[in-house]
Amino acid sequence: MKTINVGLIGAGTIGKGVIEAFIENQKSIFAKTGVDVVLKTVCDRDENMRNEVRTLGDFHITADAYEVINDETISIVIELIGGINPAKELILSAIKKKKHVVTANKALISENWKEIFSLANQHKVAVGFEASVGGGIPVIKTLRESFVANNIQVIYGILNGTTNFILTTMAEHGSSFEQALLKAQKKGIAESNPGLDISGKDSAYKLSILSMISFGVAVSPDEIYTEGIEDITPQDIKYAEKLGYSIKLLAIAKKNTDSLQLRVHPTLISSGSLLANVKGEDNAIFIKGDFVGESLLYGKGAGRRPTASSVMSDVLEIAESVACGCAIKPNKFVFSDEPAKIVNLGELDICYYLRFSVIDKPGVLAKIASILAEHNISISGMSQEERKRGQSVPVIMLTHNAEEGEMRKAINTIDQMEVVTSKTVVIRIEG
Amino acid sequence: MKTINVGLIGAGTIGKGVIEAFIENQKSIFAKTGVDVVLKTVCDRDENMRNEVRTLGDFHITADAYEVINDETISIVIELIGGINPAKELILSAIKKKKHVVTANKALISENWKEIFSLANQHKVAVGFEASVGGGIPVIKTLRESFVANNIQVIYGILNGTTNFILTTMAEHGSSFEQALLKAQKKGIAESNPGLDISGKDSAYKLSILSMISFGVAVSPDEIYTEGIEDITPQDIKYAEKLGYSIKLLAIAKKNTDSLQLRVHPTLISSGSLLANVKGEDNAIFIKGDFVGESLLYGKGAGRRPTASSVMSDVLEIAESVACGCAIKPNKFVFSDEPAKIVNLGELDICYYLRFSVIDKPGVLAKIASILAEHNISISGMSQEERKRGQSVPVIMLTHNAEEGEMRKAINTIDQMEVVTSKTVVIRIEG
Repeated sequence: MKTINVGLIGAGTIGKGVIEAFIENQKSIFAKTGVDVVLKTVCDRDENMRNEVRTLGDFHITADAYEVINDETISIVIELIGGINPAKELILSAIKKKKHVVTANKALISENWKEIFSLANQHKVAVGFEASVGGGIPVIKTLRESFVANNIQVIYGILNGTTNFILTTMAEHGSSFEQALLKAQKKGIAESNPGLDISGKDSAYKLSILSMISFGVAVSPDEIYTEGIEDITPQDIKYAEKLGYSIKLLAIAKKNTDSLQLRVHPTLISSGSLLANVKGEDNAIFIKGDFVGESLLYGKGAGRRPTASSVMSDVLEIAESVACGCAIKPNKFVFSDEPAKIVNLGELDICYYLRFSVIDKPGVLAKIASILAEHNISISGMSQEERKRGQSVPVIMLTHNAEEGEMRKAINTIDQMEVVTSKTVVIRIEG
Repeated sequence: MKTINVGLIGAGTIGKGVIEAFIENQKSIFAKTGVDVVLKTVCDRDENMRNEVRTLGDFHITADAYEVINDETISIVIELIGGINPAKELILSAIKKKKHVVTANKALISENWKEIFSLANQHKVAVGFEASVGGGIPVIKTLRESFVANNIQVIYGILNGTTNFILTTMAEHGSSFEQALLKAQKKGIAESNPGLDISGKDSAYKLSILSMISFGVAVSPDEIYTEGIEDITPQDIKYAEKLGYSIKLLAIAKKNTDSLQLRVHPTLISSGSLLANVKGEDNAIFIKGDFVGESLLYGKGAGRRPTASSVMSDVLEIAESVACGCAIKPNKFVFSDEPAKIVNLGELDICYYLRFSVIDKPGVLAKIASILAEHNISISGMSQEERKRGQSVPVIMLTHNAEEGEMRKAINTIDQMEVVTSKTVVIRIEG
C-alpha cells in the first residue's frame, strides 16, 4: 500500500491539534479511509515549539519550511502559520512543487484567492481551506458539495467566537463592552490586540470566502461593509431583549436576482431563533437555499482540536484522491460570469432599532418623529421607560423598513438637535 | 465535453423535487461543477405521474424501470420509489449493470447494507444515500468526510419530522397526542397510517445508518431498542417544562470504550439546549466527536425540495467523478473489525422522570420512595401540585442516575400497589 506523506508548517495551537489527531486517531482513520497517511515532517521557527513536538512523536523536525516544500516524498503540505508573509510565499512554492496544500489561513485565502487557485489549477493540485471559516463546522464542504444544487439566497453567520463571547457576557451579566473584553482576554478567548475580531474584520475575511464559494463572485474583504461591536452597550442589549431580540455580530450575505448584499455588523435578531441561542465562543451559520430551505450548522468556531478536525478532513480527502490516483478536481470557486453587483449600503432597505438620548420635555418625540417621517421612515414601536423631566433619558424606537441612506440623513439631522445629548445608536434588524 | 446521463425511477414527491432541480438550476449547477449532467429518462408506474412529468420537460418517459437500468448511456440511476420491493431488485440490477445508484431509501439501506455495498464494491460503483437520513441535512457527508478524523462519541438525533411536529403541537397548544396526530394528518405531515413514524421505527432505520457510518458496525434496525410517542401526554410535557425540560423523540447513539448504546425513545432534554428549540417538522442532529467537540446540524428533515437537494448532492458528486474518469472510492462503511457490543437496555445507567398516579393519602410517597431505595434509585426532586384527599393525583419524581433493570423492577412493584391508580409513566433524561 502506498503511504501518503504529509508535512506540517507551523506547530502552534492548531498545529498541535493536527499532531494530536495523527497520533491519537491514526488507527481509526486508517480503518475508515483505508489510506496510510503519515505525518512525516513538522516545521516551526520557534525552538521551544520544536522541542515540544519532539516529545510528542517520531517526526522529522525542522526550522526550515523548505525542508517540507522540497521533500519529494511529501504529497500534502499543511500551512498553519497564519498571516500573509511568509505564508503566501510558502503556499505558492509548495503548489509550484506540485504539492497539495491545506490551510486555515482566512486572510490569505480571502485576499489572494485568484493567484492561489489559478496556480493550483495550473499545477493540478488541491487547496483545502475548510478550517478557514467556522473552525470545526463543515461550512465550506456543505456549501460546495452538499448544497451544490441550490442557489444560496441568505447566509447569516456568527463567524467570530471572540465577539460572540463578549456579547453573550454582556447579555448574561450586564457587563460593559470593556469588562466583557477583559474577561475574554483573561480566558484566552480574545487576543491582547483584539482589533481584528471586535472590528468585524475577521468576520469580513470569512464572509468573503463564503461569498466566493456560494455566489461564485470574488469580493475582497475590503469591499465588505464592516461595523464592529465596540459601541454596543449593555443597555441596548437589555432594551433589545425586552422587545424580543438578541444582539449578535452577523456576517450577512443576501442574493437577489441581480445583486448581492454583503455586510458585517451588530444585528437584532429574534430571541426565539436558533442563532440567538448560539452562546459564548460558539459559531453558527444559517444558510437558506432555494431547495434545501432553512439550515443551520453549529459548532466550535475555533480552538486546537475543532480546527484540527477540519484541517484533517481536507488532508484525508486529498490523501484518498492521491491514493486512488484520481485526478484532482479543478478549484472552480469563482464560477459566475457576471461581476459581483454589491448593493450600496445606502440603498439597503431594512428595519432599525434606534436609541435616542434626549432631554425629557414635551415636543421632543414629536420633533424626532417628524424628522423621521420627512425621510420616509415610519415607526413600528416606541418606548420611553424613564421619566426625568429636564434630564437626558433614553428613548427606543423600532422602525418599519426604511432606506439606509435616508436613515443616515435623518439621524444626522436629529443628532444636531439641541435636546439630543449624545449620538443616536442605530442597529439594523434582520429575520 | 462528456455528458453524464441520469435516470430517475420514481416520480413521486421527492422525484418531482429532483426534476425541478434539474430544470431550474441546470445553468448554475453546470457553472459550479463544470459537468454536463442531464436527466435523460424518468420512470413511474403510475400513468398520471408520467403525464404530469411530460408537462415538466423533455425527458424520455417510461413505465418500465429496466428501460433505465438497461440503457447503456445512463451512468447514474436514482431510486425514489421507497420500500423494499421492487426497490431492492432494481438497485441490485442497476449495480450489476455497473451503474452508480443514488437512493433516499432508509429501510432498504439499513436492512440490506451488506448485500448492496458488497455488490457495489465488486462492480466498482458508488451508492449515494445522503437523502436517507435527515432530508436536506448533510449528515452523512459530515460524518463520513468532515468528521472523519474524529471518534464519534455521542449522536442525538431528531430524525423524524412527524413526531417532532406532534410533540411541538402538544407543547404549544396543550393538545392530546390524538388531536396533534389528527392535525399532522390534515397538514399532510403524518400519513394516514402513521405507525412507522410514531412508533419510532423510522428513526431506528436512520439511527442504524448513522451508526454504520459513525462507528463502523452494522446493527439492524430490529436490534435497536425503540419506543414511540403514543403514550406521551400534554400533562407530562407541561410538568417537564416546569422542571426546565422539553420532551423530544431522540435517536441516541453513545460510544464508550468497548460498547455502544443505540436507542430511540421520548427523552427529557434541557429546555435551553439547541435541540429543545427544534420545532415543528424540522430535524436536527447533535454530534459530539473527540476533536470537533459539540456540533449541530439543523434543517428540513423531509419534503420535496430539501430531500431533492441531498439526492442532487450525491448525483453531482458521482457525476464529477465519472466526468474526470476517477476511480470510485470503495464503500468502506463497516470498518470496525470488532462486532458491535450493544449495551443491553437493562444495564443502562440514566436519570428518569417518573409520573405516578396515586391516591392522595398519608404514607403513599414514603412507600414509593422506599421501594425505589430498595432498588438503589435515589430521588433528585419531587412535586405533587394537586391536593385531593382520597382521590387520584399525579406525583412527579426526578431521579439521580439509576440502572434501567432496577428501575423496571421497582416500577413493576409500585404499579401493583393498591393506591396506584394507573401505570407509572417513565421517561429517560439526557444531556
